[in-house]
Amino acid sequence: MKKRHGNDMKGWHGRLLRVDLTAGTCSVEELNQTWAHKFLGGRGLATKYFVEEVDAEVDPFSPENKLIMAAGPLTGTYGAANGRYMVITKSPLTGTIACSNSGGYFPSELRYAGFDMIIFEGKSEYPVYLQIHNDKVQLAAALHLWGKPTQDTEDTILGEFHGDAKVACIGPAGEKMVNFAAIMNDKHRAAGRSGVGAVMGSKNLKAVAIRGTGGVKVADNTAYRNASMEAYGLLKQNPVSSEGLPALGTPVLVNIINQFGALPTRNFQEDTFEGAEAISGESLAANYLKRNKSCMGCIIGCGRVSGLKGSRFSGDGEGPEYESIWALGASCGVDDLAAITKANYICNEYGIDPITAGATIACAMELAEKGLLSEEEIGMPLQFGDADAMVKLIEMTAKREGFGEKLGLGSYRLADSFGAPELSMTVKKQEFPAYDGRGMQGMALNYATSNRGACHVRGYLVSPEILGLPEKINPQETAGKATWAKIFQDFTAVVDSAGVCLFTTFALGVPQFSAFCTAATGVDYTDETLLELGDRIYNLERVFNLKAGIDPSQDTLPKRLLNDPIGAGPLKGEVARLDQMLPEYYQLRGWDEGGIPTDEKLKELGLA
Amino acid sequence: MKKRHGNDMKGWHGRLLRVDLTAGTCSVEELNQTWAHKFLGGRGLATKYFVEEVDAEVDPFSPENKLIMAAGPLTGTYGAANGRYMVITKSPLTGTIACSNSGGYFPSELRYAGFDMIIFEGKSEYPVYLQIHNDKVQLAAALHLWGKPTQDTEDTILGEFHGDAKVACIGPAGEKMVNFAAIMNDKHRAAGRSGVGAVMGSKNLKAVAIRGTGGVKVADNTAYRNASMEAYGLLKQNPVSSEGLPALGTPVLVNIINQFGALPTRNFQEDTFEGAEAISGESLAANYLKRNKSCMGCIIGCGRVSGLKGSRFSGDGEGPEYESIWALGASCGVDDLAAITKANYICNEYGIDPITAGATIACAMELAEKGLLSEEEIGMPLQFGDADAMVKLIEMTAKREGFGEKLGLGSYRLADSFGAPELSMTVKKQEFPAYDGRGMQGMALNYATSNRGACHVRGYLVSPEILGLPEKINPQETAGKATWAKIFQDFTAVVDSAGVCLFTTFALGVPQFSAFCTAATGVDYTDETLLELGDRIYNLERVFNLKAGIDPSQDTLPKRLLNDPIGAGPLKGEVARLDQMLPEYYQLRGWDEGGIPTDEKLKELGLA
Repeated sequence: MKKRHGNDMKGWHGRLLRVDLTAGTCSVEELNQTWAHKFLGGRGLATKYFVEEVDAEVDPFSPENKLIMAAGPLTGTYGAANGRYMVITKSPLTGTIACSNSGGYFPSELRYAGFDMIIFEGKSEYPVYLQIHNDKVQLAAALHLWGKPTQDTEDTILGEFHGDAKVACIGPAGEKMVNFAAIMNDKHRAAGRSGVGAVMGSKNLKAVAIRGTGGVKVADNTAYRNASMEAYGLLKQNPVSSEGLPALGTPVLVNIINQFGALPTRNFQEDTFEGAEAISGESLAANYLKRNKSCMGCIIGCGRVSGLKGSRFSGDGEGPEYESIWALGASCGVDDLAAITKANYICNEYGIDPITAGATIACAMELAEKGLLSEEEIGMPLQFGDADAMVKLIEMTAKREGFGEKLGLGSYRLADSFGAPELSMTVKKQEFPAYDGRGMQGMALNYATSNRGACHVRGYLVSPEILGLPEKINPQETAGKATWAKIFQDFTAVVDSAGVCLFTTFALGVPQFSAFCTAATGVDYTDETLLELGDRIYNLERVFNLKAGIDPSQDTLPKRLLNDPIGAGPLKGEVARLDQMLPEYYQLRGWDEGGIPTDEKLKELGLA
Repeated sequence: MKKRHGNDMKGWHGRLLRVDLTAGTCSVEELNQTWAHKFLGGRGLATKYFVEEVDAEVDPFSPENKLIMAAGPLTGTYGAANGRYMVITKSPLTGTIACSNSGGYFPSELRYAGFDMIIFEGKSEYPVYLQIHNDKVQLAAALHLWGKPTQDTEDTILGEFHGDAKVACIGPAGEKMVNFAAIMNDKHRAAGRSGVGAVMGSKNLKAVAIRGTGGVKVADNTAYRNASMEAYGLLKQNPVSSEGLPALGTPVLVNIINQFGALPTRNFQEDTFEGAEAISGESLAANYLKRNKSCMGCIIGCGRVSGLKGSRFSGDGEGPEYESIWALGASCGVDDLAAITKANYICNEYGIDPITAGATIACAMELAEKGLLSEEEIGMPLQFGDADAMVKLIEMTAKREGFGEKLGLGSYRLADSFGAPELSMTVKKQEFPAYDGRGMQGMALNYATSNRGACHVRGYLVSPEILGLPEKINPQETAGKATWAKIFQDFTAVVDSAGVCLFTTFALGVPQFSAFCTAATGVDYTDETLLELGDRIYNLERVFNLKAGIDPSQDTLPKRLLNDPIGAGPLKGEVARLDQMLPEYYQLRGWDEGGIPTDEKLKELGLA
């Protein structure tokens, strides 16, 4: 292991760790400084490395696919909620670039160990896990961990490696390459979407354990402190970051979105759920919540420590989050919060994305309802609202057992195999989260154009459309939404690349981020150059997807959202009017009418 | 990993580590206290565990064979030269119990980490190595180490695990299961004989790395200090331990044994070597010796740090020892000390036993000389005295390349495959060391009855027969030799079980060991009970060998030693007169006339 480089980078350590799983070797490389300036870190910089090193047509489960874990230059610093990292790879679920992120303490520990990024390449012949103790880096045998649930895996590693280590790992679902397996860290945090855990499993990499005892230096301490103080003030003034999220966590949204009439129910067949109150954040707080929990250095503290004592299930853990409650609840017509919480625990223990898992079960329920899927094929009777069946199927999916084998492919491949792909509520084969795009046109556009398929955290237009942050806009208006979508997508790319939690953006805007990034790195980022940087990242992802064969015709929504009006509730009669927004969006992006980035645009961004 | 046990054992930690390589798990067990009292530690206690747990008929390379690394209750204490450990397994070379021992710093480190013993069982699916950092124990991936020479392996482990760790490992020869592969520790120390490294390789276990920062407690500090002071005094008074070994190391014996006329030359066809002076300890000191080196806490310091600068070869390392010089030198008719030293370095780097390796090449040279083995089969011309061919064949053997494949089976299987098993100078398929039994009848008896085949360190009657320690006896006399052999064999079993270097016994006798063992453990060992303990161990090994199918008819010597008189030199006309000693030896051992331990004897020893 080489000594730390004598580079002159600030904010970044300027060091990446390359792990060749085929050879079983680890080496340190100097970070490409030019790329770091242009792509910041985390999502942006890791994507740059990824597209430079990996053929876009690669099979996601082949050794030629790589998996990058990347912190940003703000990760591990005090400031706002700067404890995030990104996982970049090619997704087995969508075939697009996958970039999933997570908080907790693991990401900061990577930085405290002196690294900005880890690139995993090749495939180990056998199960291993990576141990990082500052400069000491090695692969440990993981045969004894293979098959273990995530929390047990972490405990075993803490015992044998270092009691203060931070651990990211896959569960049995990742090992078995369930298409939407997650990478769990700090036991309850997840890089959840797009199957990044399955890629990790395909490489026989069970876990990454880090013990870091060094610090993270910023370029201008005074400016950084000033930016932090401003950020604290804004976070403390903002109702979502200072009240809603701390009090009820993300499940605060169950009642809000349901009352708005856009809580997709029974696989998007309805948009208000009669059982919403029973599965709301308020209900969770009253019944199973023990206390809040923060990620590294975060003053929001949206995490929920919970337990099922007093219910018909057993177990303790964290969550469920809003999206999980929706996917395992309203989406399946299930109003049993204990069952939802139990199912969420299983998702965390086995390492699968509860959004896709729940939505795929909802799809199966509709296939059964419509007579396209028989009781024999499932191995049990299945209908909307059956909480016990939902829990059982989650477990079978996570273990890839019985009908779980088919559920583990995701709803698109499931529905398609039964001749009804239109019943899969997905974009680019990835399942929607908990907001019906018919109820908010900006979100509809954002869903259709997200580089990783349907997603709420690549441009969270719920914020202006529903929550009124930073300002209230009309959710049913399509005019202007292309601009909103582009700005939110680009800004999100910046936040994801800086290593900061997206939840800060309820209170913080681009000026706060340009102040943070400039103070941390010494590079003069303005609001304009920072948004351009986000635009650059978005286009880089787009170009990769195009090379990977993801045609712009996939910038669309399921027919149900485009053609079938919401049948009841406040938003009765609404459809997603994508055709009114997409051409403008392409134009704003500098893409041609077919959705292909122009050479001129790519040159402008330094991508061609 | 469990906490240290609250047992009341002294001297012993009372803890063993069990590593299930099949499952990839490590667990701590309390040491069997009754067995510890009866078998002391190291060789004795490990053999007890081995015979209790392993079927004697096991294939040495099957996962059902186990490999035990065991320190004694004195290992890691100050005292005399208390830095030894034993490796116990079933030998692929002999089919007998294998017990090879080594010094250096690795054995003491095992004790400083809080363990007395490690039992390896099963077989890893892939290359791993064991890391012990006090209570933290885990298997690390070793794909990146597989194929590496031993010293490079150790350096890599020091870099990635702990810079102060002590390492035992196998080289490529162990990985490829050369029948006489060694386990190297501290780069230049070897548990060399009987192929223990091949068994380690068969389990896909590349190395054991230990960092221990705890101490070793003895039961009675005052008594232990007194025993140590007496031992220091005796070691300092004794000419071998205070002068011969420090000045010239074990190679001091080249001229002594040659002048005595018992230095086996050209595969035991002669017994004085015309090139002895050129390959003597004196020559080594004059040409390639840099300095002495001690194992942990040893005041003898027989180790030789050497280098080949100024010769036609290159390289630095340690050794060669007397036995290596003989096997690679006189045995092959080679008088080129640089070539011998180079070959010895290769043996250490690739991890093979230079005694068996050299003797097997000598056997091949005689096969070639007699026209039984052609130049085509070997791939090169081969005759006694060809130093370059010897070095080349050592490398091919270590790498198991070309004709090295056959050499790697050992001389018995080699000679047998060419129809001349009588040209293999072995007992129980293990090659002799550097003393012709025709020249010393006690050694002849000892060779024939050693539980691991031909061996000099299971009853070193060279000491009284040649060196006159503890008293001079007539080497050509057979009367009384059965008694000498039994006492030396039993005492050696005690020394090997205590964790002490056999070289201390030039100066220390049973009374010093009973004082040491009693002070360390608090168990009242007398001279009588300690020798009985040695007898118990010897019989335990014997019973295992019988169950393993090693018939007492194998208590014999090659026809050359029994029937062909030494042709020239001081011992002209001598043969090994085994028949004059063996019946008495069986009787003294309490075995029947056929060499089978009687029930009465086994009951007396607590073995039945």
